[in-house]
Amino acid sequence: MTDLSETDPVTATTPRATAENAQLALLYEVAGTPKPGNVDRAREYSDLRFEHFLAGAVGVRRGLETAEAGEPVGTAFERAVGGMATQRGGNTHFGALLLLCPLVRAGAADDLTPGGAAAVVSCTTVEDAADFYRAFEHVDVAVADPPENLDELDVRRGEEAIPALRGRDLTLFDVMELSAERDGVAREWVSRFERSFDLADRLGALDGSVSERTSRAYLEALAATPDTFVAINHGTDVAREVTERAEAVLAGREDMEKFADELVDRGINPGTTADITAAGLFVALERGLDV
Amino acid sequence: MTDLSETDPVTATTPRATAENAQLALLYEVAGTPKPGNVDRAREYSDLRFEHFLAGAVGVRRGLETAEAGEPVGTAFERAVGGMATQRGGNTHFGALLLLCPLVRAGAADDLTPGGAAAVVSCTTVEDAADFYRAFEHVDVAVADPPENLDELDVRRGEEAIPALRGRDLTLFDVMELSAERDGVAREWVSRFERSFDLADRLGALDGSVSERTSRAYLEALAATPDTFVAINHGTDVAREVTERAEAVLAGREDMEKFADELVDRGINPGTTADITAAGLFVALERGLDV
Repeated sequence: MTDLSETDPVTATTPRATAENAQLALLYEVAGTPKPGNVDRAREYSDLRFEHFLAGAVGVRRGLETAEAGEPVGTAFERAVGGMATQRGGNTHFGALLLLCPLVRAGAADDLTPGGAAAVVSCTTVEDAADFYRAFEHVDVAVADPPENLDELDVRRGEEAIPALRGRDLTLFDVMELSAERDGVAREWVSRFERSFDLADRLGALDGSVSERTSRAYLEALAATPDTFVAINHGTDVAREVTERAEAVLAGREDMEKFADELVDRGINPGTTADITAAGLFVALERGLDV
Repeated sequence: MTDLSETDPVTATTPRATAENAQLALLYEVAGTPKPGNVDRAREYSDLRFEHFLAGAVGVRRGLETAEAGEPVGTAFERAVGGMATQRGGNTHFGALLLLCPLVRAGAADDLTPGGAAAVVSCTTVEDAADFYRAFEHVDVAVADPPENLDELDVRRGEEAIPALRGRDLTLFDVMELSAERDGVAREWVSRFERSFDLADRLGALDGSVSERTSRAYLEALAATPDTFVAINHGTDVAREVTERAEAVLAGREDMEKFADELVDRGINPGTTADITAAGLFVALERGLDV
């Protein structure tokens, strides 16, 4: 819950609900600029534009409200992704939603802590996993190949993979565990959302507008850990290069805006870092980040 | 209703509801750039930033859903303004909501036409007017002085003016009629939302991204009619100057970006034209504007 009501009675008429903070987090993530390699309000790709992210953020809210109401994470996620897909840019928020749905559940239960989030994901079921696979029917998502000998669980198979899930009795947490090595969003599920909470701490500690804080916290996260979405699409060498250059920007050895332009030109999109930024923004907003 | 379901089954999983299109219209209005004098994703004022408009657009949705559910326009409006006020930028969407609430009602009744909108506003009551006055308790809004001898109806009196409203048996439509000469939003109420529908026609006819169409349609609207919000804050001469210079930009005699920079520097904010742009975007989205 935000503390608006305590700090300014004039603005306290309708405090933001948890799902509203999650929607706002998605908007603040994409508005934060510069955010090298990701769509922001100053940079976009011709087929994936700022306006697609705005439409996606509008469409996901019913799914987020489902999570706030305490419905299963898989139900909320599948609904959110279905709402996201009402625009032509494609995958705007898939990874961010996979973080936000359990975090919204934890927030609605007044336990938005690493332990509270871990409790939510550890309680997911095989049905949640089935809904996760159904979500891939709505949109094309770039993902890592499945672990060896687990082709039948390839998420790109969508609904067709559900019998294999049931046969192996895999919960959504189990599915995330199988992907955690190669996918930074899945890794959050099995590591108490550590990077998301760290990013929220940074947003709270930084100064400036939300956009400036977002840009800075994103850059620090990018410099700290190679982006797995970049690794999936361009290989681990490129992911490592991006991390090193983000460090160079932080150290003042490289220009932020030029780095941002170059990544867009090369089509290098650190999407996992953006997802974690959105999750961190949500946590910060729930903690009362001043807006 | 959008026609997404007819054009692309992949994206048809969760067509946008009417209130969702209204929320998206507010986001597209503020994202459209350049939009001389108004906050957009490239220009902002130090105390009224892009991020305030995003938070406002998140907060208004419950009010818009109230309108979609067929509740009275005043109830929906007051709720939307209360939600808008959960950020510190102040008035981000007051005028746009005054247009959108009746238009959402008309859209939800499947009659989003000038006649349908006129029918909604002509049915407003004294209670709607009271809720309109209550909305001024949430936020400071720059408004025209009341007509002569009607000081007791000054909207800046907020709730205190409600007994005077009741004494005169004034509906919200009546209140708008009293302001129509000096306020371009009120004028829409008494002229079948003519400029809003015209702007929707232009958005449908123009090419390019939604941002590009929005920028162009806004500029054309600014060149066509002096902005009453500018007139209220800076006088009619300045309002006329802005209109003439918008014409000059359209004619290629003046540079759009320089004009935009200058208006922000001078604090000249054609807010009524932005409100009508948001209303036009909503109508265009309901008609199926491709996103």
